[in-house]
Amino acid sequence: MIRIGIVGTSSISERFAEAVAIVEGIGVSRVASRDAERARSFADRVGAPGVAVGLDDLLAAPDVDAVYLASPNAVHAAQITSAVDAGIPVLVEKPAVLTAGEWDAAVAHARRRGVVLLEAMRTAYDPGLSAVRAALPALGTVRRVSLRYEKRSARYDEVLAGRQTNIFDPRLGGSALRDLGVYPLHALVRLFGEPHAVHGVRVGIGSGTDGLGSALAVYEGFVADIAWSKITDTSLPSEIQGEDASLLIDAIDAPRRLVLTPRGGVPSVITVPADDNPMVGEVRRFVDAVEGADITDDQDCTATTLRLVDALLDRPVV
Amino acid sequence: MIRIGIVGTSSISERFAEAVAIVEGIGVSRVASRDAERARSFADRVGAPGVAVGLDDLLAAPDVDAVYLASPNAVHAAQITSAVDAGIPVLVEKPAVLTAGEWDAAVAHARRRGVVLLEAMRTAYDPGLSAVRAALPALGTVRRVSLRYEKRSARYDEVLAGRQTNIFDPRLGGSALRDLGVYPLHALVRLFGEPHAVHGVRVGIGSGTDGLGSALAVYEGFVADIAWSKITDTSLPSEIQGEDASLLIDAIDAPRRLVLTPRGGVPSVITVPADDNPMVGEVRRFVDAVEGADITDDQDCTATTLRLVDALLDRPVV
Repeated sequence: MIRIGIVGTSSISERFAEAVAIVEGIGVSRVASRDAERARSFADRVGAPGVAVGLDDLLAAPDVDAVYLASPNAVHAAQITSAVDAGIPVLVEKPAVLTAGEWDAAVAHARRRGVVLLEAMRTAYDPGLSAVRAALPALGTVRRVSLRYEKRSARYDEVLAGRQTNIFDPRLGGSALRDLGVYPLHALVRLFGEPHAVHGVRVGIGSGTDGLGSALAVYEGFVADIAWSKITDTSLPSEIQGEDASLLIDAIDAPRRLVLTPRGGVPSVITVPADDNPMVGEVRRFVDAVEGADITDDQDCTATTLRLVDALLDRPVV
Repeated sequence: MIRIGIVGTSSISERFAEAVAIVEGIGVSRVASRDAERARSFADRVGAPGVAVGLDDLLAAPDVDAVYLASPNAVHAAQITSAVDAGIPVLVEKPAVLTAGEWDAAVAHARRRGVVLLEAMRTAYDPGLSAVRAALPALGTVRRVSLRYEKRSARYDEVLAGRQTNIFDPRLGGSALRDLGVYPLHALVRLFGEPHAVHGVRVGIGSGTDGLGSALAVYEGFVADIAWSKITDTSLPSEIQGEDASLLIDAIDAPRRLVLTPRGGVPSVITVPADDNPMVGEVRRFVDAVEGADITDDQDCTATTLRLVDALLDRPVV
């Protein structure tokens, strides 16, 4: 049984704890917060026996074999370093760190110490992504990949009201690209590998970061269109177009309903059975990793995705 | 009554003749082809009284007040010059010419001679585009424009079989961007003006031209994603996302069904009444032009669209 400590007490940590309860071989032992009362309250809510005040306290606890980091993105890198130094395996919420360079350094450090370091990129381990991959041969030569994750955040109201808020605060790494864009970008990398080049446009909002954007990723013989937004909603699904068929994907972060339409033919629906909790797959993968599975590819996909994010962040917003 | 001569005997000319029959104040008087028999046969089919063997014969005919050019794109520029020299108003099928430079020269020539020169860009004069424009205020601040025209051509089978075919022949200006991409690009220019910049990727096919591609157009505060294809099919409509609502558009070349979804609200459908024949609008506009309407804006929109096409053609296919 892997006894995992949770850092961060937001709703994502709560969903994570629910996922841990579903997976065999792992259980939440402690919850850490700088505020002891908040840690206790959250621990009670998710049924965790212990608490810790801050990360160092958590890492020193005798009943913590691994940690899940769901702290603000900007502090992930430092927390990874602390955990790896303590020899404690790390599952870190996406985006793992702020730049590809930070990730490369963190992975190198973890490998030197022989410590597991995995990004909690739920899309990568979702059965829906496997279903998409399984459908690709039916498409024939792939010519266009259109992946999107666009969902207006209620927090945008605060930006419109002139207030700063974490997820849109550029000083904390806040960015729609980092927050939602990474899902379609990571799925793209998982399905098709690293593109030859990437072009992109980020649209700025009053808080000083991007609220929405688009990217074109160039592959040999096809192009990928990527869209993300935290300030508007869409009615459009994702789609992959091949010369023989097209595939609609209801949601690229967690595909549940695919529609395969052969050229000139009748659409057929592929329903993906999955846990209600979309984080179960990443928890399972983390357990495998701690038990010795090779996660080199996983770490490389995170690095590639972060390189794409870096390239897209490299230009001013419009 | 404007007596118009038709150059070219393909299916587009046939639809054009049907549109002319619907519009008051204009009628087809002659059909020109280098092959006299083909001209006769086509003239009989569309109910035109006269024929002509070649363009010069047509321009010299006493019963020809204007011409419609639906010849191969690569010969448009020379034919425009001949008609303008003869003082004959020209409606030229899209894309009007191969480059923005050719268009600027043709327009300058036509203006010097006081001759009407209009591109037959049906989308520009479609009631559906007016309906989209009318819906824009309901969207609030526009943040993303996603326009697409993707439809596999049966001619692509010839390319796959290793044969060259006009619409995919780069020596004749064949290109999915020129052929279908101009519809969403022209609609974009009509709705939002000229972008500050455009990025794009064209995907090459065996014939040596692009079969599909994507562009990002940069505007102040929003981004436009444009997609075109003649080698794949899509199930996706176009969409414009504002901060207050999103608008789905069934087909950007001729919008007939719009769906407006206010943020957090219930979608409402806007049905666009229109002629079955989508070329009626451009014929009406041409009649107005010959009767003295100012078409400077129309000519400028064609120029802007062709500049975008030029920019996108400027890089090698992938």
